Amino acid sequence: MKRSFASDNNAPVHPEVMQAIIDANHEDYVSYGDDPYTKEASNLFNENFGREVKVFFVCNGTGANVSAISHLIRPWQTIMCASTAHIHNDECGAPEKFTGSKLHTVPSEDGKLRVKQLEPFLHSVGFEHHAQPGIISITQSTELGMVYTPDEIKEISDFARKNNIYLHLDGARIANAVAALNISLEEMIALTGVDVMSFGATKNGLMMGEAVVFLNPELAKDFEYIRKQSMQLASKMRYMSAQFIAHFKNDLWLKTASHANRMAQLLAEKIRHIPQVKLTMPVQTNAVFASIPPEIIQPLKEKYYFYVWNEKNNEVRWMTHFQTTEQDIDDFVRALEDLL
Amino acid sequence: MKRSFASDNNAPVHPEVMQAIIDANHEDYVSYGDDPYTKEASNLFNENFGREVKVFFVCNGTGANVSAISHLIRPWQTIMCASTAHIHNDECGAPEKFTGSKLHTVPSEDGKLRVKQLEPFLHSVGFEHHAQPGIISITQSTELGMVYTPDEIKEISDFARKNNIYLHLDGARIANAVAALNISLEEMIALTGVDVMSFGATKNGLMMGEAVVFLNPELAKDFEYIRKQSMQLASKMRYMSAQFIAHFKNDLWLKTASHANRMAQLLAEKIRHIPQVKLTMPVQTNAVFASIPPEIIQPLKEKYYFYVWNEKNNEVRWMTHFQTTEQDIDDFVRALEDLL
Amino acid sequence: MKRSFASDNNAPVHPEVMQAIIDANHEDYVSYGDDPYTKEASNLFNENFGREVKVFFVCNGTGANVSAISHLIRPWQTIMCASTAHIHNDECGAPEKFTGSKLHTVPSEDGKLRVKQLEPFLHSVGFEHHAQPGIISITQSTELGMVYTPDEIKEISDFARKNNIYLHLDGARIANAVAALNISLEEMIALTGVDVMSFGATKNGLMMGEAVVFLNPELAKDFEYIRKQSMQLASKMRYMSAQFIAHFKNDLWLKTASHANRMAQLLAEKIRHIPQVKLTMPVQTNAVFASIPPEIIQPLKEKYYFYVWNEKNNEVRWMTHFQTTEQDIDDFVRALEDLL
Amino acid sequence: MKRSFASDNNAPVHPEVMQAIIDANHEDYVSYGDDPYTKEASNLFNENFGREVKVFFVCNGTGANVSAISHLIRPWQTIMCASTAHIHNDECGAPEKFTGSKLHTVPSEDGKLRVKQLEPFLHSVGFEHHAQPGIISITQSTELGMVYTPDEIKEISDFARKNNIYLHLDGARIANAVAALNISLEEMIALTGVDVMSFGATKNGLMMGEAVVFLNPELAKDFEYIRKQSMQLASKMRYMSAQFIAHFKNDLWLKTASHANRMAQLLAEKIRHIPQVKLTMPVQTNAVFASIPPEIIQPLKEKYYFYVWNEKNNEVRWMTHFQTTEQDIDDFVRALEDLL
Repeated sequence: MKRSFASDNNAPVHPEVMQAIIDANHEDYVSYGDDPYTKEASNLFNENFGREVKVFFVCNGTGANVSAISHLIRPWQTIMCASTAHIHNDECGAPEKFTGSKLHTVPSEDGKLRVKQLEPFLHSVGFEHHAQPGIISITQSTELGMVYTPDEIKEISDFARKNNIYLHLDGARIANAVAALNISLEEMIALTGVDVMSFGATKNGLMMGEAVVFLNPELAKDFEYIRKQSMQLASKMRYMSAQFIAHFKNDLWLKTASHANRMAQLLAEKIRHIPQVKLTMPVQTNAVFASIPPEIIQPLKEKYYFYVWNEKNNEVRWMTHFQTTEQDIDDFVRALEDLL
Repeated sequence: MKRSFASDNNAPVHPEVMQAIIDANHEDYVSYGDDPYTKEASNLFNENFGREVKVFFVCNGTGANVSAISHLIRPWQTIMCASTAHIHNDECGAPEKFTGSKLHTVPSEDGKLRVKQLEPFLHSVGFEHHAQPGIISITQSTELGMVYTPDEIKEISDFARKNNIYLHLDGARIANAVAALNISLEEMIALTGVDVMSFGATKNGLMMGEAVVFLNPELAKDFEYIRKQSMQLASKMRYMSAQFIAHFKNDLWLKTASHANRMAQLLAEKIRHIPQVKLTMPVQTNAVFASIPPEIIQPLKEKYYFYVWNEKNNEVRWMTHFQTTEQDIDDFVRALEDLL
Repeated sequence: MKRSFASDNNAPVHPEVMQAIIDANHEDYVSYGDDPYTKEASNLFNENFGREVKVFFVCNGTGANVSAISHLIRPWQTIMCASTAHIHNDECGAPEKFTGSKLHTVPSEDGKLRVKQLEPFLHSVGFEHHAQPGIISITQSTELGMVYTPDEIKEISDFARKNNIYLHLDGARIANAVAALNISLEEMIALTGVDVMSFGATKNGLMMGEAVVFLNPELAKDFEYIRKQSMQLASKMRYMSAQFIAHFKNDLWLKTASHANRMAQLLAEKIRHIPQVKLTMPVQTNAVFASIPPEIIQPLKEKYYFYVWNEKNNEVRWMTHFQTTEQDIDDFVRALEDLL
Repeated sequence: MKRSFASDNNAPVHPEVMQAIIDANHEDYVSYGDDPYTKEASNLFNENFGREVKVFFVCNGTGANVSAISHLIRPWQTIMCASTAHIHNDECGAPEKFTGSKLHTVPSEDGKLRVKQLEPFLHSVGFEHHAQPGIISITQSTELGMVYTPDEIKEISDFARKNNIYLHLDGARIANAVAALNISLEEMIALTGVDVMSFGATKNGLMMGEAVVFLNPELAKDFEYIRKQSMQLASKMRYMSAQFIAHFKNDLWLKTASHANRMAQLLAEKIRHIPQVKLTMPVQTNAVFASIPPEIIQPLKEKYYFYVWNEKNNEVRWMTHFQTTEQDIDDFVRALEDLL
């Protein structure tokens, strides 16, 4: 068996999630979400966010991001994000295609946006030749594994609200961020002024299924049509919903995320002493970024899946997940050391 | 347990398909389709189509239809289909939104298109004010449960080819059609000149997963970008692919479809003698359309899920699926008779 | 000189309009509409509509229709129109491309919509699989030269308002309709509940320039971004505005339209007695529809430009315009008679 | 009379162009381009490009850019341009809306792109998560008034061709560039490998009208549908075409552009000695960029129209045009000096 450090979506489905799927497989249910599993899963979102939210299950992360953003803006409004954002780099232009909107990016080393980078976009307001600021999209944890504090999110949402701009949060790895800060979803999301989030779970042990969560239910009005028109409505939805029920049960989602984070920390600790390996980012969640000698990249790839993040400085990304074991880390570090 | 006659997507997942999912759940695999399950599933498509095809797994039927069609036309070209087509009625405008193209519909009682209905569209050719004929989309079996013969498909594809128009086949219920005609996919699809099809399987026992199949692999060039941009690329694709492996294994897909068809026939036979119930369509696959006295619609709905198809003539649709039993049919007919 | 009966847009520019253009050509002005001509032209719209409206000049009729409609709906909402509508037949799919919305058409012989044809669309309301009724678009005068009475428009707008649907009026030939009914724009448009209209003028003597008019200024909010994003914002706008000033001055627009209407009446009168020529539509504005012997179509086309409207019944369309003379009509009728 | 230095589109229409419009206004002609003026204007493009090109007249510059680019790429392909490009900054997101594509920008001080900035985009090739390089768009002269040499264009087109990427040139001010380099259109465009260009003329004395020019006529196939669907097809096209005939007659277009360039040079010379005014860009065409003391910006704006380009360094843009006189320059410089 070959352990992958390429992405947390290389992992299998968590056994408890799989069991929930099996348990849901016994009789006929109305499709498209009018079933008891979807109802229960929706309630679990309310519980975890500490308020009544509106949740919509969708097929994948790109679908979550694009449908959520599209719902809140018009095509002549912009989407502002970090240059590192998944919506900019890894969705093959789906945001532009479906929203019809311009993405405005600002450079970021750690994947975070800062308010002072957003202020220049206000110069366009009211000038018909310029696309108008519409929504800010931040990623938590970021594509570089870093975590916004609630105060940092609050600062951005204050800026957004003051300027009639919406705030979207791409939470493809929200669990890793929540686990890292050890605070609740309510504290991280509901109280910080986020308008809508993409709640990721596939990278944290689900088979398939993400969620769009509107913090203010009124903002969700008519979103069901966007979900359908963006081709994100699953017919046998109970199987998605059942996964989310297991996800939240006994805080499984936090246990799995905490474990993944811990494995990344362990990996970072074990390689910190190796002189030829240089960590390029602090390790806050389940990703380790490091520069390694270029000549060992290929040999190491023959043993383990992982991505080269930046060819210029031989930076690679190693991701851990809920099933990564201490043994896996030991084996990986040994393989690395053997090559050096 | 309440058996549903509302739609074949109200059914659970077939046990053999579920087992295949479970069996695939044991280690790390590269995501997005670069895994052995996807390779094996793709090969099974080649086998069943009697040639090398190009297959792409997608999240749902709307996604299959829209991405396939979008790939083959430009926005100034039209999509021609029957007025009954799923792409026209049941996808919340997703085809127009994503392709940017006009849908041109022609009236149809049984869901089939005829070449003579398509000919008038040729009048637009070459006139810049008119959207240009781009692709014909037919549904097999149709939304009314009817089946095109291979000759009928061939006649449409000949017309299409002669006029530089593509032919798409929406096979949301392709298995029911293949089972009904008792011919191979090769005879029905590959030899009749279809360019691309949406291969449906969720309605026939899968949990989630459809496929876009290009009969001519060259036409598939660059489709991977359309799949991603249309938000149809699943990360943990092995779980979709594993379902298709089970689907084709020992011709499970035909057994389940044949069974569903048989149950519809049984239902039709048992109600044919009831004077207040009038079949409105021949029963060729797994759908039964009938006019029933309006006063029993609501009481019957309290016992069974089903849809009113046409309020004007009190026409309802009853669908069977792979798990519908003879007992279910008996119970349903008895409930019906009790109400009359 | 060959007089054209093909379309009123085959006419030249009215001399008074041309003079207004020449008079505007003397110094530097700020572009994009911040000039005194645009201000004056806008005021003339207010005057003619009997209230404060919001008017935006655009480049052409397709641009007016598409931008206006797009502003008021979301892509999951439909555009309902007659099967004869310009937006459906003659804009090469621009409405679908730019709005992302589905066009729902109903059959019409005279180009008019009736409320009872619209009612079935309400069945989709609230069902996420169906695109939702968004806007009704009617054409005044219709593509068949017919005119809605204010009461007929009011009936449609009442239906629309009651069901949260907007009403758009394509007024490519609005002047001909106003002239035909001999009522004011206020009575025809402002008091009948139209939300937004495309005000056509190019077919009535302008060189280039149409207008989008919002009857309720609040509905116009942010339309300037739609105009720009739909590529309809002209830089040297004063030259459009100057044309509209001349258009409205001394009711030129009604004189020219009345004249065109009269010429069509004259033509109809003069051919009514010819047994081989059969009028297929009442003549209410500046279009004459007639069935003529197929063998004379080509010979007549060699002498005069005109369109065959329907090949099946040898129906042709002859349009008059502000410069068509009685002599032109006499000559045309003689040519027609010579061929019979 | 207040001379504007805000933009060359604040100028009136050149008298010879106006006369051509007047001369075209005498009888009926078929609309949409099937008229002798359009034929003649098209031939003049062939002459000036030294080969048979395909030319399509459109309503405005944004329409030219967007329709041309859209024709050559699919939505999953990118548009690469300088951060200063009009398509990125000044078209209210029309490129994203109509093409559905991502704009990839690279920083530029002078408005020019360099090949080494484009190379990193090749890393995305073949990776389905990334939008694929589709077309490069350069502006000649640039938004900063700078001019690419033919060799510089050739270097970019070589890179493009080698990598199956198209090259678009936004020539909103192409005449100023041609005049500045004193070479032919053939040398600048046809021989350098440009695939399609937006040929601007409104800023150089026309009333309204731009052109999309395909250097290789085969690439133009089906563009007529894109023009119509992008709402850029004018009905009374002869009036656009007549303007272009005057534009090219006796090289009017180069005389006007040369004059505008000369006036910018004159302005630059006259202010070069003023210590508080600092030219921020070399003056190559008809734009002068300068930093001036912030306290005089407002007072100067009360006398002359112009734009603040960059608030951070008090940089302003002054543009000259075909009617700017030496007296205008003298007056302007005096006004400037009076304020200092």
